[in-house]
Amino acid sequence: MPTFQNVRGMRDLLPEEAERLNYVICKARETAELYGYKEVITPLVEPYELLSAKSGEEIRNRMFAFKDLGNRTVALRPEFTASIARLATTALKNEPKPLRTLSIGSVYRYDEPQRGRYREFWQSDFEVIGSNRPEADAEIILLTDNLMKTAGLRNYAFKIGHIGVIRGILSQESVDDKVQNAVLQRMDKKEYDEAFNMLNPRISQTLRGLVELKSNNAFETVEKMKAHVKDFDEAAAAADNLSEILKLVTESGCEIETVDPGFGRGLEYYTGVIFEVYIPELDIALGGGGRYDRLIEVFGGEPTPATGVAHGLDRIALAMQMQKTAPKSEQKKRVAVVPVREEMKSEALRIAQKLREAGMSVEFEVMGRKMAKALEDADRRRLDYAVIVGERELKQGAVVIRDLAKREQTVVAITELLERIRG
Amino acid sequence: MPTFQNVRGMRDLLPEEAERLNYVICKARETAELYGYKEVITPLVEPYELLSAKSGEEIRNRMFAFKDLGNRTVALRPEFTASIARLATTALKNEPKPLRTLSIGSVYRYDEPQRGRYREFWQSDFEVIGSNRPEADAEIILLTDNLMKTAGLRNYAFKIGHIGVIRGILSQESVDDKVQNAVLQRMDKKEYDEAFNMLNPRISQTLRGLVELKSNNAFETVEKMKAHVKDFDEAAAAADNLSEILKLVTESGCEIETVDPGFGRGLEYYTGVIFEVYIPELDIALGGGGRYDRLIEVFGGEPTPATGVAHGLDRIALAMQMQKTAPKSEQKKRVAVVPVREEMKSEALRIAQKLREAGMSVEFEVMGRKMAKALEDADRRRLDYAVIVGERELKQGAVVIRDLAKREQTVVAITELLERIRG
Repeated sequence: MPTFQNVRGMRDLLPEEAERLNYVICKARETAELYGYKEVITPLVEPYELLSAKSGEEIRNRMFAFKDLGNRTVALRPEFTASIARLATTALKNEPKPLRTLSIGSVYRYDEPQRGRYREFWQSDFEVIGSNRPEADAEIILLTDNLMKTAGLRNYAFKIGHIGVIRGILSQESVDDKVQNAVLQRMDKKEYDEAFNMLNPRISQTLRGLVELKSNNAFETVEKMKAHVKDFDEAAAAADNLSEILKLVTESGCEIETVDPGFGRGLEYYTGVIFEVYIPELDIALGGGGRYDRLIEVFGGEPTPATGVAHGLDRIALAMQMQKTAPKSEQKKRVAVVPVREEMKSEALRIAQKLREAGMSVEFEVMGRKMAKALEDADRRRLDYAVIVGERELKQGAVVIRDLAKREQTVVAITELLERIRG
Repeated sequence: MPTFQNVRGMRDLLPEEAERLNYVICKARETAELYGYKEVITPLVEPYELLSAKSGEEIRNRMFAFKDLGNRTVALRPEFTASIARLATTALKNEPKPLRTLSIGSVYRYDEPQRGRYREFWQSDFEVIGSNRPEADAEIILLTDNLMKTAGLRNYAFKIGHIGVIRGILSQESVDDKVQNAVLQRMDKKEYDEAFNMLNPRISQTLRGLVELKSNNAFETVEKMKAHVKDFDEAAAAADNLSEILKLVTESGCEIETVDPGFGRGLEYYTGVIFEVYIPELDIALGGGGRYDRLIEVFGGEPTPATGVAHGLDRIALAMQMQKTAPKSEQKKRVAVVPVREEMKSEALRIAQKLREAGMSVEFEVMGRKMAKALEDADRRRLDYAVIVGERELKQGAVVIRDLAKREQTVVAITELLERIRG
């Protein structure tokens, strides 16, 4: 049989990469605790209907969809928000609001693989359900800032926009939802001409004017937006909302680098503020989110405002690697335990167990190698000590301990072994 | 649109359940560190060919298999061993042996849902690759014992057997592999008559004699097995091997309750010792594994002995719940921060950020509720303190802090807030 390869777009994370991803996951959990979010675990396989309902054409066409053995059409989740919205209309329907949830896991999209983009990737997803207020949106941005900071990233920058400003203009001009979605999808890809060509010249001009607003300062851009949309009631309210969120976030110590009036995002369910965060070294977002006030009612729940963010955990891990930010981990002492002869095996295993009970990481010699080979291997694995269990020392209740860094070895009573390794 | 339901057999883990599962995952990672296993992360979607190669008919028929958009036949992993064997023949081919790996994640089997059995479930999978020695098998059992113990389980019991004894008899009698697999599959389901009817009367009788061996003592059972198979060379060597593993494990402080000479396991790739662990309250195994010396060569690698175990993490979490074993977690102080009026929002958010920087879990008031409502909610969520940010106190650089358990509130300078909450 030939060697098997991975499925295209799916990769293995070897120990160093897995450790880096787990480190970021750990930071996401710490962030959740600091901000009062409770973790829930939803299935990776969901009804296709649920996942496709408001995700937008882009994602819908790239889902891993299939029929299960019971002939149900299901798909691997391409994101978490639909599952959390489902929970909010079912098992968590009667929970007091605000409901703050964290989800962590892998998600699946059939994208063209490239650096930092795979068909299986990991997200931490934070949702606040039940609040329509700007402080909830500010919180989502602030906790993202916390995650970037605690992952050790530098020079990351936020980009912020507001779907409500764009939809506000289109709605007041009676552009129907379907066209609105199509326009936003093009805008998300920065295909502005294609987007505006779907609209009549007057609306097109208003929107183009909005998109082309520029300034060197986030607050100034928002002021210009306000002025530009002052005759569109909903859009004007949305611009005020963006202004307030910007103020809250900035005053809480998180700088927003860019307000992008023409900013769209791939998902169809957004209704309010949207944002993404980047580092200069990578041209794909490390995280992004926004407000989605109508998704939960679409899913059969009461009208319920909500806002949330998803962080690309493996991308953050990649960003750490690019910025040479090593995860800070305190390593346990690592010890090899090696019996000199076959007959010492049981005794050596008992000593290994004692060291583990004391919290040490022990690699027991399971290859039956000669001492020199076993020590060479322990050395290559960069272990701290080797404990050599021989007949002669054992008779005196002792073992030989070898400091692998210093290349020194001494006889130590078993009763003093722990203390000796701890130093 | 109607409310969406979960896909059959897939469940949501709400915060308390998710916390329990994460606790077990944490214990599995700690166990891996104590025993020198490095975590790797393999894809959830693997080639169907890989997953079906040696898993056995039982699992093959219950896989979530489908074609991806590139027309590849893929499946959701029903277990980890095939993926790790793939790694051992590709990316980790040249790693020094023994290779000790840990995998943690969800796996998928289209089984009939019942208590403790779902179509999505979680495993920690430990593999030692490159050692053919009984101390490697002993290690796999000992680390399973460690996981059960640190999860706080009581009265768990190991059952152990040896596929090599059964296959040794069948091979010496020239029963071909296909029939051997079919016989073992029936034996796994305790359908002994169906199993033995596939064989000629003489072999059938030998096997029945083996299966019916009984004694009150594990060591005694193994001695009886040795005597029973003494004329079958391979089977006799296998019985010796079982005896040595039993001795090593027992002498290391882990008791084996049952040696079951007729023990089979669902997976086709086992060649040596196999084992499972149970608690009295639950009739499905919490973990199980064994030796599989030929899988890696089947996958196109060099002949490489290997042994491993998978633990049912959500089953262990269920077992903890049944035995009323609460996860031990140290909770951070939980604080609500509530602005008295809209105008205090920015200032209140800044105070919230400071508390978070000091490691406290802060739920900021994002509902814009009146004070009484917000405090009532904080109380119901069992938070420790509420910090009330009002205009009058703020002018003096102070806030009101309310001890929610004692129902006492006092004015505290912002500079002393941290100290006050820490107690």
